[in-house]
Amino acid sequence: MLIAQSGGPTCAINASIAGAIEEAGRHPDLIEEIYGGRNGILGVLNENLIDLQEEKRSAIEGLRYTPAAALGTCRYKIDFKKKPEQAARDMDRLFAVFQAHNIRYFFYAGGNDSQDTSLKIHEEAVKRGWDMRVIGIPKTIDNDLPHTDHCPGYGSVIKYNATTVAEVGLDVGSMATDDGSVCIIEVMGRSAGWIAAGTALAKRGNPAAPPHIILFPEVQYDVELFLAKVREVISAHRYCIIVVGEGIKNRQGEEIGADKTKRDAFGHPVLAGAAWKLKEYIEATLKTKTRTVLLGYAQRAASHCASLMDVTEAASCGESAVRAAVSGQSGYMVKIVRESSSPYKWSTALQDLRQVANVEHFVPREWISADGFMVTDKFIEYAAPLIEGEVRPPMEGGLPKYVVLQGSPVEMKLPSRDAVSAAPAPEPAPAAEAAPAA
Amino acid sequence: MLIAQSGGPTCAINASIAGAIEEAGRHPDLIEEIYGGRNGILGVLNENLIDLQEEKRSAIEGLRYTPAAALGTCRYKIDFKKKPEQAARDMDRLFAVFQAHNIRYFFYAGGNDSQDTSLKIHEEAVKRGWDMRVIGIPKTIDNDLPHTDHCPGYGSVIKYNATTVAEVGLDVGSMATDDGSVCIIEVMGRSAGWIAAGTALAKRGNPAAPPHIILFPEVQYDVELFLAKVREVISAHRYCIIVVGEGIKNRQGEEIGADKTKRDAFGHPVLAGAAWKLKEYIEATLKTKTRTVLLGYAQRAASHCASLMDVTEAASCGESAVRAAVSGQSGYMVKIVRESSSPYKWSTALQDLRQVANVEHFVPREWISADGFMVTDKFIEYAAPLIEGEVRPPMEGGLPKYVVLQGSPVEMKLPSRDAVSAAPAPEPAPAAEAAPAA
Repeated sequence: MLIAQSGGPTCAINASIAGAIEEAGRHPDLIEEIYGGRNGILGVLNENLIDLQEEKRSAIEGLRYTPAAALGTCRYKIDFKKKPEQAARDMDRLFAVFQAHNIRYFFYAGGNDSQDTSLKIHEEAVKRGWDMRVIGIPKTIDNDLPHTDHCPGYGSVIKYNATTVAEVGLDVGSMATDDGSVCIIEVMGRSAGWIAAGTALAKRGNPAAPPHIILFPEVQYDVELFLAKVREVISAHRYCIIVVGEGIKNRQGEEIGADKTKRDAFGHPVLAGAAWKLKEYIEATLKTKTRTVLLGYAQRAASHCASLMDVTEAASCGESAVRAAVSGQSGYMVKIVRESSSPYKWSTALQDLRQVANVEHFVPREWISADGFMVTDKFIEYAAPLIEGEVRPPMEGGLPKYVVLQGSPVEMKLPSRDAVSAAPAPEPAPAAEAAPAA
Repeated sequence: MLIAQSGGPTCAINASIAGAIEEAGRHPDLIEEIYGGRNGILGVLNENLIDLQEEKRSAIEGLRYTPAAALGTCRYKIDFKKKPEQAARDMDRLFAVFQAHNIRYFFYAGGNDSQDTSLKIHEEAVKRGWDMRVIGIPKTIDNDLPHTDHCPGYGSVIKYNATTVAEVGLDVGSMATDDGSVCIIEVMGRSAGWIAAGTALAKRGNPAAPPHIILFPEVQYDVELFLAKVREVISAHRYCIIVVGEGIKNRQGEEIGADKTKRDAFGHPVLAGAAWKLKEYIEATLKTKTRTVLLGYAQRAASHCASLMDVTEAASCGESAVRAAVSGQSGYMVKIVRESSSPYKWSTALQDLRQVANVEHFVPREWISADGFMVTDKFIEYAAPLIEGEVRPPMEGGLPKYVVLQGSPVEMKLPSRDAVSAAPAPEPAPAAEAAPAA
C-alpha cells in the first residue's frame, strides 16, 4: 500500500493518513507494507518513499492533531492536455515505481487537482492491466469538492476563522469611539466562498454581532453598494467587521485583489490584495480608519483550534478509503454523507472519481442573502455541526507539541528519475509478482 | 472607585479589571461603589460611567478569559504640550466628574500614553487638593513599559504568535518542494521588537526550526544582507519562515513599511506594509514564491490561545493596584518583578509614574544575535515562562463563549460635556463630602 498527500495542507489531512494507516493494520493478510510517498506524487516519481510501519504508534496517533502534511505535499499535476509527452513519461515512471515495490493499493488525499491525478492513475492501471486499487481521500479547506457534503479540513478552518472574527470583533468594538472602526479580515477561497461564509458562525444568530459583512467570490459586487453597506453598519454599530474571500470580484467580474502579472503553478492568478483594495476604497470615500488582517497560511494550519468533528471525519475518510480498497473497489473518492443536521449524523460513502475530478462546488446562491453581504440560515444549519468539539493537542512549554515523522526511507529499486529522464525509453523494472503486496 | 481601560486591548487587560474589582470588594469600609469608565478617559470626560457592582459575579470572573477591553477603550490623550487649552478644560471636567461622584480611587490600565495620563491626573489631584489615590495598571502587548519585568498582555500575544509560527512553519515546510518556500509573518511592534522576538520560542531550541529569521525594529537592516540570509536559509532548509516587526527600518533608519502620508491619533506614521515590502524584495531578486501573513488585531485578541501565566499576572496587577491605593499610595504604576527565571518566580511592586510615563523599553542589544536576525539564549530564558499554561475559555457551539458586561449606567450628575464646552468656565458640581467614597 502507498499513500500520499497533495495540494495545500489542512489541520485534518494528517488525520486521514492516521485513519488509513490504522485501518491498513487491520488487514495484514492483504497489506504487508505501508509506504508513504514524500511530497505527494513527486515522491512516487522520485521513488522517495518512507516506511510508515517503522513509525512509532504514538507518532501515527499524533497525526490526528498535527497540522500540515506530515508526508510532505506538492502541487505537481500530470497534465495530458498541456504537457502530453511529460505526462506519458510520468505515467511510465509511476507504474515502474508501483511495480518495483509491488504497490497494489494507492491512496491520494487532496483536493480537485489531486482527485484528477487519482482518476488518471486508476484509468492507467486498468489500461496497463496492473491490478491496483486507487481511492481518493477528500481534503480541502476550500470545501469545493462536489458530491461530498463537505470536505475534511473545512470544519477546522472555519472554526479558527470564526473564533478569530469573534475575537477581533470584540477588540475593534471596544475601541469604536475613535480608533479602528473598520477591520477587514481576508480569508482563503479563490473561487468558492465557503471559508468566508463559515465566519458567519461567529454571529451566533445575533444580527448586531460580527462579522457584519461577508463578501463571496461567487457574487459580483458593486463598489458603491458595498460602501453604502459599510456606512450603514458603522452608523448602526459604530464599527464594522468585514470578511472577504480572497477571490472576490467587481461588477465587471474582475478579481479585486488579483495581481494579474503573477500566476501560480496551475496558471491561476495569484491573489493577495482584496482586503487592501477594500481598505483603500473605504479610507478614500468614508474617511474611516480601516485595518486589515490577512490570515493566510495560519488559518489552514491552526491545529491548536481545530474542530474535533472535522478531525474525526477526516480520520474516518482515511479508514473508509482503505476498507473500500481491500474490498476490491477502485476509481472512487470517499465522500461524507449528511444523514441529518439536527442532531448531526453522518456516514461515508464512495463517489466515482470521474464525477469528482476538476469539478468545483460553490456556495448555493440561496445560502447567500439577497444583497450578497451575508449567509442565510440554511448555511448556518449546514455549517454549525462542522466546528463542534476541540482537538486540544498536547502542550509542552506553553506551545502545542506536534508530531514529525521520522521518515525511514524505503530502499530504492530503480535508477534515479534524472537518469530515467536522460534515457527516453527506460525499461520498467519487472514487478516482483510473487512478493506479497506492499 | 473608578477604573478604566486605555489604548489597544490585549487578552489580559480584562483580567486586570477583574482582579481590581475583586480586590475592591474586600474593602467595603473604604470603597462603597465600583464604577467603570466607558472607553477610558473619554467615558470620564463624558460622565459615561457604569456600575460594576450591578454585574453578575460570573461576568466579572469571565473577564479573566475575555479579550478586548470590556469597559471600552480609547486613544484620547490629554496633551498639555500640543493642546494646552483643551487639556486644561479636560482636567477641569475630569475633576468635576470625580467630585460629582466622590471618586477617591482612580485606576487606569494602559500602556505608555495611559501611564502619562495617570501621572497627570495624580499631579492634578495633588495640586487641586482633591484627596484621590491614582494607580496605573500596566498593559501592553508591546511590552515596552520600563521598570516592569514585562507587561500583562505580552505573554499571551507571544504564545499565540509562536503557536502560529510553529504551525505555519510545519505547513510551509511540508510544501517546500515547489510551493510557498518563503512565508513572512508580520507582527505588531512599532518601535520595540518584543513581539517579534517572542516568536523565537517556536524554535524550542532547534536552530533548524522556524522562525528562521526575525527582524526587529531596534535594528537597521541592510537589504542585501537580509536577502543573503534568506538565500542561506532556503539552501539549508528548502523553506524560510520570517517574522517581521511592523516597524522595521532600513540602513538609513527609514521604516520599511510606513505609509508616510497617514498618521494615527498620536501622530505616529501608520505601519502596515513591512511584510509586503520584503515580499517584493525577495520575489524580485531571489525569484522565490513568497506568501505573507498579517496577524493584525487577531494577535492581541486571541484569548482562545492566551497564556495562563499572563492572565494570572494581569489579575494580580489589578489586585495590587487596589491594595496599594487603599493603603494610601498614589502616583505609582504596578510593576511585575522577576525573582527568578528557573523556576520562574515573580511578585508585584510599585514604580513612581514619573519614571514610567512616555519612556519606552526596547529589546536589549545583547538579547539580539550579532547579525540582527535572531534572539540570543538570554531572551529565551526571559520569555519562556511567560507563555506557560492555557486559559481555555468555556466553549459553546464550537466557539469560545466570552463575557459582555451589561453596563448598568451610573446616573449623570453634571451637564453634558457639549454643554460644558459651550460654557467656557463651568462651575464644578460641589463634592458630596459627607457621602461615602465611590
